[in-house]
Amino acid sequence: MDSMNNDLSTSLITIGEEPYVGETPEPFLDTWLTPNNRFYIRSHFNFPQLSSENLLIPINGFVENPLTISMKDIKRFPKHTLPVTLECAGNNRSDLLPKVPGNQFNSGAVSNAIWTGTPLKEILNLVNVKNNVSEILFKGADVGVTDPNKPNEPYLRSLSLEMANHPDTILAYEMNGEELPIEHGYPLRLIVPGWYGMASVKWISEITAIEKLFSGYFQGKKYVLKYKDGTEKPLEKIHVKSLVTYPLANTTFEQNDVAIEGIAWSGYSGIKKVEISVDGGIHWNNASLIGPSEKYSWHQWHYKWINPDKGNHSIISRAIDGDGNIQPIESVWNELGYAVNGCKPVSIVIE
Amino acid sequence: MDSMNNDLSTSLITIGEEPYVGETPEPFLDTWLTPNNRFYIRSHFNFPQLSSENLLIPINGFVENPLTISMKDIKRFPKHTLPVTLECAGNNRSDLLPKVPGNQFNSGAVSNAIWTGTPLKEILNLVNVKNNVSEILFKGADVGVTDPNKPNEPYLRSLSLEMANHPDTILAYEMNGEELPIEHGYPLRLIVPGWYGMASVKWISEITAIEKLFSGYFQGKKYVLKYKDGTEKPLEKIHVKSLVTYPLANTTFEQNDVAIEGIAWSGYSGIKKVEISVDGGIHWNNASLIGPSEKYSWHQWHYKWINPDKGNHSIISRAIDGDGNIQPIESVWNELGYAVNGCKPVSIVIE
Repeated sequence: MDSMNNDLSTSLITIGEEPYVGETPEPFLDTWLTPNNRFYIRSHFNFPQLSSENLLIPINGFVENPLTISMKDIKRFPKHTLPVTLECAGNNRSDLLPKVPGNQFNSGAVSNAIWTGTPLKEILNLVNVKNNVSEILFKGADVGVTDPNKPNEPYLRSLSLEMANHPDTILAYEMNGEELPIEHGYPLRLIVPGWYGMASVKWISEITAIEKLFSGYFQGKKYVLKYKDGTEKPLEKIHVKSLVTYPLANTTFEQNDVAIEGIAWSGYSGIKKVEISVDGGIHWNNASLIGPSEKYSWHQWHYKWINPDKGNHSIISRAIDGDGNIQPIESVWNELGYAVNGCKPVSIVIE
Repeated sequence: MDSMNNDLSTSLITIGEEPYVGETPEPFLDTWLTPNNRFYIRSHFNFPQLSSENLLIPINGFVENPLTISMKDIKRFPKHTLPVTLECAGNNRSDLLPKVPGNQFNSGAVSNAIWTGTPLKEILNLVNVKNNVSEILFKGADVGVTDPNKPNEPYLRSLSLEMANHPDTILAYEMNGEELPIEHGYPLRLIVPGWYGMASVKWISEITAIEKLFSGYFQGKKYVLKYKDGTEKPLEKIHVKSLVTYPLANTTFEQNDVAIEGIAWSGYSGIKKVEISVDGGIHWNNASLIGPSEKYSWHQWHYKWINPDKGNHSIISRAIDGDGNIQPIESVWNELGYAVNGCKPVSIVIE
């Protein structure tokens, strides 16, 4: 690891070292905005070192006017700024039983930042995509081994033409008002609001309009929900989920009111309701949604637990989104450990 | 200056050293969110070093139940998070002619951050303010000389009971998702959205309900608009204003379209319109408002200047807010150099 990664390991909890993978420490999930150095990192290969000044990104494939574009030209378009919560598809994988392989994330592979960039559609308008195009393919400059019998390959993911042209799908170059940090994709990353993080390709090095549906390693083999019954489903939108951020598990309180706090999010729509149970799931009460209400960001919530009895308690939160999706009590086990969104009880003691 | 101030002087433009005063460098005014280390600093005395753990803030004066409150107890209330642009009342003072004394700010004593804290009204509800109260007085822990013939005094400012009870007036302890930095008031500062920065008292050390209108040094002598005709007016809401952030002044371009960018803000209401003139104020065209539209934050804008003629040009922006307030072409001179909001032309050359 280079010195930059050592710095990250002081602000994140290191999950993997080669390449670096780190999650936000639980006590830092209680702020609406995640500072850049606390934002979780899931990299697939080592960070490529790119130069913003020299980078030329080919926009090619089935387009009328293929071109290469510089960062300077990308930045000529009006800035589009929006807060977006990203969650790694493997967040909370360590909660699954039986265990599955992969990065053993606890609850911290989710973070919220304010992203600024150029809508991807502006760039696609420049090249004029042909009628036979079904998807836009994004290549990251990060390269490595996916199969020991094959040469190195880059990180590659596609989006449907519809998602690529969505006004909120951006090529981002700023994060929380700062230049995009190297570990988050400097100088340019895709941001696909509402989708699991694997779609927001970092270190964009080529954009290609393609005719057929892409099914490469990171789309056809990884990032697929493979259920016990044999059904398979690609990962796209983030499943509805909530988390208790305060109190932390195994805290002891003196008998007193407890201000329970947390976050809830969904890639389908905004959060409509968060319910809290302090008796292990028998009774549920409404929490108050607090803080900013933004389309693609998590929502903070608050519940005042008045005069709890002495003893051991289990606090559970459950989120419901605007589309009516309800966070399940139990996560649905799948082979690669994705979209783990079951309720996560927090045990505390009142003395 | 201690080491912390030396760090600030690398990310801000130092305007004053004892106490430290610094403004955001102009090239960094082009991001919607201002990172903490780029957020302007106007301090009146040296930064006090307070401990969040030991601090006990008296809430007293004409109240039924005076108390002292800890940071821990303040943080028990639901978090209120909101983006707020603060502008120093003396921003752009250096543009006034004839010159006036005071910190010679250029355009950078304005910044935008996301603040989190407890609504002040929650704390006032705890102590039960008496009927005869007209204002709430805030004391900062920063202390110094205001008059060489008098002992040191603290920074003191008041708010009307109505403003103090406004749901968006908060006692803030987080800034952009981080613990409030020392130079921005750690551990607790008042945030009065829409008002010039002097109202957002830093390093809160005492809150007192008072019967009469406060008229101390920083309210009766400083932060008063004193016009040539003898009229005087206290500073409150931020006057409507805009700024061209790109291009920077005295830039030379090759003949080509120029993407003009800037910011606009008002403490009275949201920005309704920004107009651009590229011929020194004869003709005006509408800019596009871009980026987040938030009640208390500046708005970014964009104007594409197509095919400009060769030669010297003067770009001017003018903002109009939702209440119909129009940014004046010329700032109104006043004795102490406050609320300088005249249009600021940017000269460029097209070759």
